[in-house]
Amino acid sequence: MLRSALRARHLLVTRVPIVRALNRLPIQKPFPSHYARRYTHTWGSENIHYGSFPERTHNCGALNKKETGKLVTLCGWVPAVRSISNDLLFIPLRDAYGTTQLVFRSEACSNAEAANALRSKINSLTPESVVCIQGVVRERPEGMRNKDLASGDIEVELQEVMCLNTAATNLPFLPGKQKLPKEEVRMKHRYLDLRRPELQQNIRLRSKVASIIRNYLTEHQFVEVETPVLFKSTPEGAREYVVPTRNHGQFYALPQSPQQHKQMLMAAGIDRYYQIARCFRDEDLRADRQPEFTQIDLEMSFIKASDIQNIIEGMVTEIWKNALDIQLDKSRFPHITYQHAMSKYGSDKPDVRFGMHIHDISKHLPGASEDGVLECMVVKKGANLKTAEIRSVAQEYESQNGDLSKLNSVKVNENNIGSWLEKCSLSKRSSDVKTAQNSLNSQLEIEQGDLVYIHKRSKYLYGGNTPLGKVRLQMSKLLQDASLLHIDPSDYKFLWVESFPLFTPDEAGLRTWQATHHPFTAPFPEDLALLESDPSKVRGQHYDLVLNGMEIGGGSIRIHYPEMQRFIFDKVLELQPHEYQRFDHLLEALAGGCPPHGGIALGFDRLMSIICGTPSIRDVIAFPKAGGGKDLVVNSPSELTPAQLAEYGLQLTKK
Amino acid sequence: MLRSALRARHLLVTRVPIVRALNRLPIQKPFPSHYARRYTHTWGSENIHYGSFPERTHNCGALNKKETGKLVTLCGWVPAVRSISNDLLFIPLRDAYGTTQLVFRSEACSNAEAANALRSKINSLTPESVVCIQGVVRERPEGMRNKDLASGDIEVELQEVMCLNTAATNLPFLPGKQKLPKEEVRMKHRYLDLRRPELQQNIRLRSKVASIIRNYLTEHQFVEVETPVLFKSTPEGAREYVVPTRNHGQFYALPQSPQQHKQMLMAAGIDRYYQIARCFRDEDLRADRQPEFTQIDLEMSFIKASDIQNIIEGMVTEIWKNALDIQLDKSRFPHITYQHAMSKYGSDKPDVRFGMHIHDISKHLPGASEDGVLECMVVKKGANLKTAEIRSVAQEYESQNGDLSKLNSVKVNENNIGSWLEKCSLSKRSSDVKTAQNSLNSQLEIEQGDLVYIHKRSKYLYGGNTPLGKVRLQMSKLLQDASLLHIDPSDYKFLWVESFPLFTPDEAGLRTWQATHHPFTAPFPEDLALLESDPSKVRGQHYDLVLNGMEIGGGSIRIHYPEMQRFIFDKVLELQPHEYQRFDHLLEALAGGCPPHGGIALGFDRLMSIICGTPSIRDVIAFPKAGGGKDLVVNSPSELTPAQLAEYGLQLTKK
Repeated sequence: MLRSALRARHLLVTRVPIVRALNRLPIQKPFPSHYARRYTHTWGSENIHYGSFPERTHNCGALNKKETGKLVTLCGWVPAVRSISNDLLFIPLRDAYGTTQLVFRSEACSNAEAANALRSKINSLTPESVVCIQGVVRERPEGMRNKDLASGDIEVELQEVMCLNTAATNLPFLPGKQKLPKEEVRMKHRYLDLRRPELQQNIRLRSKVASIIRNYLTEHQFVEVETPVLFKSTPEGAREYVVPTRNHGQFYALPQSPQQHKQMLMAAGIDRYYQIARCFRDEDLRADRQPEFTQIDLEMSFIKASDIQNIIEGMVTEIWKNALDIQLDKSRFPHITYQHAMSKYGSDKPDVRFGMHIHDISKHLPGASEDGVLECMVVKKGANLKTAEIRSVAQEYESQNGDLSKLNSVKVNENNIGSWLEKCSLSKRSSDVKTAQNSLNSQLEIEQGDLVYIHKRSKYLYGGNTPLGKVRLQMSKLLQDASLLHIDPSDYKFLWVESFPLFTPDEAGLRTWQATHHPFTAPFPEDLALLESDPSKVRGQHYDLVLNGMEIGGGSIRIHYPEMQRFIFDKVLELQPHEYQRFDHLLEALAGGCPPHGGIALGFDRLMSIICGTPSIRDVIAFPKAGGGKDLVVNSPSELTPAQLAEYGLQLTKK
Repeated sequence: MLRSALRARHLLVTRVPIVRALNRLPIQKPFPSHYARRYTHTWGSENIHYGSFPERTHNCGALNKKETGKLVTLCGWVPAVRSISNDLLFIPLRDAYGTTQLVFRSEACSNAEAANALRSKINSLTPESVVCIQGVVRERPEGMRNKDLASGDIEVELQEVMCLNTAATNLPFLPGKQKLPKEEVRMKHRYLDLRRPELQQNIRLRSKVASIIRNYLTEHQFVEVETPVLFKSTPEGAREYVVPTRNHGQFYALPQSPQQHKQMLMAAGIDRYYQIARCFRDEDLRADRQPEFTQIDLEMSFIKASDIQNIIEGMVTEIWKNALDIQLDKSRFPHITYQHAMSKYGSDKPDVRFGMHIHDISKHLPGASEDGVLECMVVKKGANLKTAEIRSVAQEYESQNGDLSKLNSVKVNENNIGSWLEKCSLSKRSSDVKTAQNSLNSQLEIEQGDLVYIHKRSKYLYGGNTPLGKVRLQMSKLLQDASLLHIDPSDYKFLWVESFPLFTPDEAGLRTWQATHHPFTAPFPEDLALLESDPSKVRGQHYDLVLNGMEIGGGSIRIHYPEMQRFIFDKVLELQPHEYQRFDHLLEALAGGCPPHGGIALGFDRLMSIICGTPSIRDVIAFPKAGGGKDLVVNSPSELTPAQLAEYGLQLTKK
């Protein structure tokens, strides 16, 4: 696809009428005389050409054998000059579209003087300087061709070089070099780092995927609507950025998502809304979070969850086809309930690229599991891991408030294959260990060389992980590092996780319940009667799209009845009236005749990071923030002057 | 185009397998029994159906005669029930795609009981309630058809109505009514106002135009890049919003435009960048400004001004063709210099939909013009204006520091046609008034009934208007109000205004010069030598796209030489080093090998307002801010709690 885009680009550029198809051009000064006018000033430089320059006839990815003999004008960057001899220099000229080999041959110049002048110009070019050149396309000699390069069959024999801008000689690094400085330096000089082909490709692919998404959604009758970035502050908005105004004491806040506005758009009858929306979250910047991020946000009216899921599956299929040349189909989007995901994988976003299932073995060891669930996880080949590695996993478990008496692990070998279960302290309270041992060995296909975990968890599942689920992920990492498990990086396993509990015990312990996702998620209709009688059992119409163990999107059918929304605020979540008054506009919109609706949001940065196969989302963002939310390019955040603060009616507190 | 979109939508929806093409269906309860399950709770309502509902088979704009006899399911809003008799009710069901007439006929019900039940359901619907209905498509009787409606040939005979949400009976207004409340009320309840077809159409057209723009730019190899919204504060940033962080005393600022980032993207080798970007400006909200606004932002490398202008002309042509069905061509984008625009129209964004040219008549009256330029403007039919109106224009002139002795006006009639110039005080210092009078009458085709202005202005032109240019615009308004001048609202007159002076005398008077547009604009190459010797004569490579007297876009070729940029900061603009240090990252990017580049930004809100023909840009923004930057929907900006302020290390000053 990229290649075809380049071809299209090529067609565009060659429409320019300068190109003349001559077989062997006379050696000439190809630039018209008015380009030769030079300006020297106090600020000027001898080596640079100021003013207008010839139009490029091609880009550096466009030339091939067919152009042989043509006089062409190219523009681009000179990474380095490779000097073979005084009479032969090579320059790999680079632009946004590719690289073309330029060659200086003194024998191709009209005379020695001309050759000296051109050579001297070339040699004065610092790495990363910008030039406009003219020359004649030549086929490369057999054996000198570069099959990795689109323009690898040709070279351009230089006739003239015009330096459009000299690069400083003290550049912090050169983007073409293999050995790059640490990320902080590269982020500060992002304009250099972005010249690297890897980042160029990521940024271009991001643009292409955005275009695929927009065209797909437009074809499906979605209306793009821009929602406000200057939004409203909420007293509990612990993660929001606020924006002071010149009205004393009055603040906007930046939105964490367009949630309320898109619901109001449904009340407004927009029917199908989308936006690739910038969102903001003021939080300690963990490894891969950005204070501003982009989400693919959509909402539909008069639909059910499967309608939204179908739209998203179609969109993802379109992206994978066009960006990765991979054809997905409906079977690639299986559904799993939260209960199933949590009990089988110990995670609400299971990585199903590998097995390592968690099994409920309570019934095998009746005495041992009475106040909880006894789980067993078989780590194939896990006995090959170092004892220290296995111990570190247990330590991690303990450090997260795990009770080590509830986690047993045994390396299975030829000696203990028939007795490993007896060694697990958790099994001791059961009388029937021997029978259990045999049936587990056969049912779970336990072999010598496996590592077996037995774990006892509480019956009630909530949150994003079970303790054994975390062990599972750590084991997968250790196995991969030890080459005991291989996960194909181009294997994409999607999963819809559904039927989440609508409410989760309140973490803060102030109230009984908190909304598992957000308070606008609609309950399952079948569970409506439980809203009053047993909120713990109410399932929410929430769905997460999970890819390779990462949540790439989440959405829900929303509550559209004002009475139900108010009941949940008031009776279930036990909010005080002043706490839900900040949703008055939303309640009013529901009461104004709001249709049934639902939607979803996908994290665009994360999605692109997966598609580009980058270790960090920073690699798919043109100007990302570094740790602590710092913008190293412009050196931000930064101080305000007292006068600026005063304009906003603010002063700093003492530190 | 809209119609075809609806057809496409229709095709999409009719793929749903529920539709059965029966000629005359038996009267039935069409909803399967599981939809009839009802939930009654403390929060519930008798009239509302809770839970799942049938899938719609069509939207309300999709049905026509071909569907006659089909059983259909529709969803939408009930604006009102029109009761003809107990046995005949009409409901114009509305959704995002159109309106379909529903009809209740008691004779079509299976028996009187069923008719009573259905009638009672219908009569309980409050205006703007949301329903799902089933019924059979019938051709309307001849004479009852509505040609203004896509579905005007049919009606749907009701078999079942399911209320999905009841609208409150105390809605502040009904969107279908002719008489609407004042804008403040409509903005507060934006979800209701947005249901009006006018606003729906504006929002949908905006989405469509955004799509046209993106596809056009993508076809022309532009790469969409998202630039940061959390940007850097500058001490002089009088119009920027700041964003406090939890790092004590450290602030971001919201960008007024992506200018610096797009220039860095050119240094990064992106070649062609675009973005439909949200920008922010903290200023007193004049009539039609928004604190956040959207601009179509683009930048290109290795180009000259005409390349950017060609791209924009192509884009605008594409928009006009697809959104307005108007074919533009190259001739519709004439070029004019700043000097010409200012001297002929008295404006740097001339409205050329009417003539009323300003003429330099200095040479006719040599004595009178020696220390300035003597201008003459003929207002055709202007003598018909009321004297009070003409006086008000003079008063306005005076109120803006105009010297009334430099502005003469004469109504030309049969008595003074040969002598009007003598009555102008400005002409008195010239000896040759009589000759001038005759040649002006003939050259400017002055007739009885005209109003003639003579004005003396300073020779040096700068700023956006001349005094007489302002008079010209006021005259045009007065003439239009008095029906003496007609301007066709569908007449679109574009204009490229170019060759602006690069520098303008510093308004603040602190320095000699300020940048006319911004300090990054490149000078004309021909004027480079003047940078040191006479900055007033240096023309900038800036270009504005003007439409009907409004600037809809502006851009320039940028400076790409770090030495030249520093020279302008330092020597011409006389900035202190600490003032231009905030552009260090940009200077570094230029010094890192930055190609020649330039770009443009178009105001998307203004453009859409012109395309939609709305009086205000608020009518093309889904959730605009009202006067004073207030968001009436969410009641923002608002106060923070002391705890929130403390988190940002802030306290309010005393008022």
